[in-house]
Amino acid sequence: MKKLINAPESVLADALKGVEAADRSVRVDHHNRVIYRAEPKADGKVAVISGGGSGHEPMHGGFVGYGMLDAACAGEVFTSPTPDQMQAATKEVDRGAGVLHIVKNYTGDVMNFEMAAEFAAAEAGVEVATVVTNDDVAVQDSLYTAGRRGVGVTVLLEKIVGAAAEEGRDLAAVTDLAHRVNDGGRSMGMALTSCTVPAAGKPTFDLPEDQMEIGIGIHGEPGRHRVPLAPAKDIAAQLVEPILADSDMAGPAIVMLNGMGGSPLLELYLMFGEVAPLLEKAGVDVARTLVGNYITSLDMAGCSLTVLRADDDMITLWDAPVQTAGLRWGR
Amino acid sequence: MKKLINAPESVLADALKGVEAADRSVRVDHHNRVIYRAEPKADGKVAVISGGGSGHEPMHGGFVGYGMLDAACAGEVFTSPTPDQMQAATKEVDRGAGVLHIVKNYTGDVMNFEMAAEFAAAEAGVEVATVVTNDDVAVQDSLYTAGRRGVGVTVLLEKIVGAAAEEGRDLAAVTDLAHRVNDGGRSMGMALTSCTVPAAGKPTFDLPEDQMEIGIGIHGEPGRHRVPLAPAKDIAAQLVEPILADSDMAGPAIVMLNGMGGSPLLELYLMFGEVAPLLEKAGVDVARTLVGNYITSLDMAGCSLTVLRADDDMITLWDAPVQTAGLRWGR
Repeated sequence: MKKLINAPESVLADALKGVEAADRSVRVDHHNRVIYRAEPKADGKVAVISGGGSGHEPMHGGFVGYGMLDAACAGEVFTSPTPDQMQAATKEVDRGAGVLHIVKNYTGDVMNFEMAAEFAAAEAGVEVATVVTNDDVAVQDSLYTAGRRGVGVTVLLEKIVGAAAEEGRDLAAVTDLAHRVNDGGRSMGMALTSCTVPAAGKPTFDLPEDQMEIGIGIHGEPGRHRVPLAPAKDIAAQLVEPILADSDMAGPAIVMLNGMGGSPLLELYLMFGEVAPLLEKAGVDVARTLVGNYITSLDMAGCSLTVLRADDDMITLWDAPVQTAGLRWGR
Repeated sequence: MKKLINAPESVLADALKGVEAADRSVRVDHHNRVIYRAEPKADGKVAVISGGGSGHEPMHGGFVGYGMLDAACAGEVFTSPTPDQMQAATKEVDRGAGVLHIVKNYTGDVMNFEMAAEFAAAEAGVEVATVVTNDDVAVQDSLYTAGRRGVGVTVLLEKIVGAAAEEGRDLAAVTDLAHRVNDGGRSMGMALTSCTVPAAGKPTFDLPEDQMEIGIGIHGEPGRHRVPLAPAKDIAAQLVEPILADSDMAGPAIVMLNGMGGSPLLELYLMFGEVAPLLEKAGVDVARTLVGNYITSLDMAGCSLTVLRADDDMITLWDAPVQTAGLRWGR
């Protein structure tokens, strides 16, 4: 295993020190492993928090800041944060307007966020609402999931819902919007190589030199099938088709071509060039785009496609200012 | 070789189609392989262009836009663009205030930009000035370079000089600033793995599982030495020490911890957390930071450190608005 780390057991703690040193717009609670905005909390604003296992950076810690998240709870690599962490974050960010939990659909995350919400309500009277993302069309049920996995739409949702909270919408409105974004989003991923979890020290799975895996999960969970390595044009079709088969995507959409962490940006742009015409031929109006590493799987080579059917409200919120390490524009 | 491409010979052309589809703030001249700003050119503004071999994305094409470059010429992977491309770009962006060429110090790039400058002056009367970046302290002379290689400072220079051009400084002032930025910047890189050039189909070099290469170039050119794989803390020291040995960096600095393309963001933040205290102990005031993939080497795992001793003018220009795919803030 070749990694820029000190030791497998200190990866998260050490990385959080780096986040603190690099980004003065956030502060880090090292005890609870929560990243908060450094700027004072706005009174009366709905707070939006998320969290999950590490190894998917910039998600979620890189999305803390103006126009997006108020806090992110970081678990160990590919491991859910604990209810304690989430409860601390929930109480810390609440200013009386309530807190939205954005949770990717993995059994551990869902259970822990649920407990945290109950504790925070019981102990501190915090009103908590939850959206569970489940946009991955690849498989029904998976290694760590009952139902569909939550993947790329989580990034788009955090941006859009964060903007709605910033402009002062109340918890009910923000939560309703969050559900609408999740309902309108679909994703499909693929891997050329496995990732290597530091604590494991070796690749999570073997993938022969002439094969790729279609429908991979962001923790290396099995996808739909392994198929021969193919040109980008064919890979694009294998990502677009399952999404369009699952949902009518005609009309305006926000489209993300996301890298899994180990694929160069050159290849991600190339993939977007193959995906965009296929979507347009199917009546999708590619209104907004995002190309790059946003929800990753450590050093896995590969990519995922997320298509979000977006109404005018979502597009306006997408364009609103955002000021985070991972997404930044307009302010 | 596992890559998201159609064929080795069409990588650049295909990727440029993706850039065009993804980013409406630029336009692509596919014949000349030049990326331009889509917005109308500002009369009387000094134009700033750069270019080089592909495979280092987001540099340079991802830095075209408000506050940074007016155009970027894209060569084939790790291959200089031709004088024709640079000449076309130079003539296209000039609005009578002259053009600055930002050239990384590689023999082919330097020669070709020089020819393009002469042709553009002779044919169209364009006033061209040039800065050649040579910030890599690793080696004197290299596989493709006489003297030091130009690496990370190029990113910081394009940002700072682009902001100066945007605020209306003349060609002499912009050029003088560019030389000062290059003079104040030093970089050092390292690799855990080789990159794989599509046309070659196999890794550029072999690096055993228990070794890393210190002082690597962004095309996989040999560095200073191969040493046993070490914890992040030791790697940080091996990047910081040669920089501080080469130049007095006490005082305010802009510090970039750059990923080579295949290393996860989690590890890059972790590395920054190791580098920052070493710099501060040596009297460097880490005034501004950048952590992520900015000047890459395809899928190489590893990182580089760039330290730029920055005066107030440079810091103010660093903070000025920028609106590109690769760097974006404040507008």
